[in-house]
Amino acid sequence: METPQEAAATGGAGTGESYPSIGDWNSCAADPEYRAAVLDLLGALAYGELSAFERLAEDAKLAPTLEDKAALAGMAAAEFHHYRQLHDRLVEVGADPGAAMQPFAEPLDSFHRMTAPADWPESLVKAYVGDSIAADFYREVAVRLDDDTRELVLRVMADTGHAEFAVGKVRGAIEADPKIGGRLALWGRRLMGEALSQAQRVVAERDALSNLLIGGVEVRGFDLVEVGKMFNRITEAHTRRMAALGLAS
Amino acid sequence: METPQEAAATGGAGTGESYPSIGDWNSCAADPEYRAAVLDLLGALAYGELSAFERLAEDAKLAPTLEDKAALAGMAAAEFHHYRQLHDRLVEVGADPGAAMQPFAEPLDSFHRMTAPADWPESLVKAYVGDSIAADFYREVAVRLDDDTRELVLRVMADTGHAEFAVGKVRGAIEADPKIGGRLALWGRRLMGEALSQAQRVVAERDALSNLLIGGVEVRGFDLVEVGKMFNRITEAHTRRMAALGLAS
Repeated sequence: METPQEAAATGGAGTGESYPSIGDWNSCAADPEYRAAVLDLLGALAYGELSAFERLAEDAKLAPTLEDKAALAGMAAAEFHHYRQLHDRLVEVGADPGAAMQPFAEPLDSFHRMTAPADWPESLVKAYVGDSIAADFYREVAVRLDDDTRELVLRVMADTGHAEFAVGKVRGAIEADPKIGGRLALWGRRLMGEALSQAQRVVAERDALSNLLIGGVEVRGFDLVEVGKMFNRITEAHTRRMAALGLAS
Repeated sequence: METPQEAAATGGAGTGESYPSIGDWNSCAADPEYRAAVLDLLGALAYGELSAFERLAEDAKLAPTLEDKAALAGMAAAEFHHYRQLHDRLVEVGADPGAAMQPFAEPLDSFHRMTAPADWPESLVKAYVGDSIAADFYREVAVRLDDDTRELVLRVMADTGHAEFAVGKVRGAIEADPKIGGRLALWGRRLMGEALSQAQRVVAERDALSNLLIGGVEVRGFDLVEVGKMFNRITEAHTRRMAALGLAS
């Protein structure tokens, strides 16, 4: 069976190892629709990192030991640094980061409100699942971006994986008390369900971003079927990770 | 009048510009009492940074805009990096960071519990005051440390000052609504009072650390009068900063 580490090493959702260029930012951004789509994407990612920071810092309160608390705080600090990079890029291309993030505040806040962990094992599973889904999404979206934006997205993503420490902790918790496995499996499904539900809401509401995802950039030949496949690949990678964690999803 | 920036630049509490050496860590730590005192100090500073991270991340929720939220989150992330450096040093000298921090968890948690900001201006004043008092204390304590520990303490301290952004924000809030000035002045006094009260509790309970502060290291010729003077210098620096902020303290 593939371990979570192996799943991460082989690329999670398993796509995007080669990246044919569609040009650099300056040439692509001449198309106002492309520019709007990327600003949407960077705004969504930036708010995602900022809200991940907030929730990990909040969930650190559930930690049973100071070392555990510090581990979750360290993940939170890493998310903040991702946020800074995305924020600085928005400023660099002349966008207002606050305005770019605002449309995604409510869907992401809703996600976190609906998935507040009840205890430490739930917060560990959430940290791990959230980190992994984010990495999968970054990898998927990277293939249809201009060279400069892609470089940024891959750089931010390369710095994920802080959640790996959670894997051992969750396994230990299940070994110590096998009956929490069922509850955590249910929790993993709920996290994925809420994430997909908010993602669909964003796709429905944000034309520019959706166009990027469903083929607004013609050279990529993307369409709705592809978006469906992307969600499937991310869900399948999640399922494999949950199984490797000892949780039927 | 000295601005807060000038107060910071001229050294806050205004001591410690020269540091006569008492030797390096290896020679000083041969004295078990000195070693215990420094482990106490590093444990206290480490937990202080970790709890500052937690509270700043919590207070970021009060921010009126995403940019403000991000500014406080950035301070929190900086505190986490200070924590990491102190934690890693504890490991390096063979101490258990959790055990070193534990005695200071309750006093620092009490401080934060007693000083939970009610709104955004209160959280800004707390961030600024907390950052400044920490820098003053680091600077004071540095003079009576071995070269290696002092280098660490000064390095961590050099990275403070993230709270300066709070100064302009607080001034703006008072200009927009002058009557909050009185409440914030009271708040500044309460922060300082609680900080001193918890510091005295620590001095009373931790023999090794207190010995360091009151002259356990004989070469420094430190005594209780000096500890009183140190608290006075920190209080006076606080008073100057509050006045520069437009808050009578």
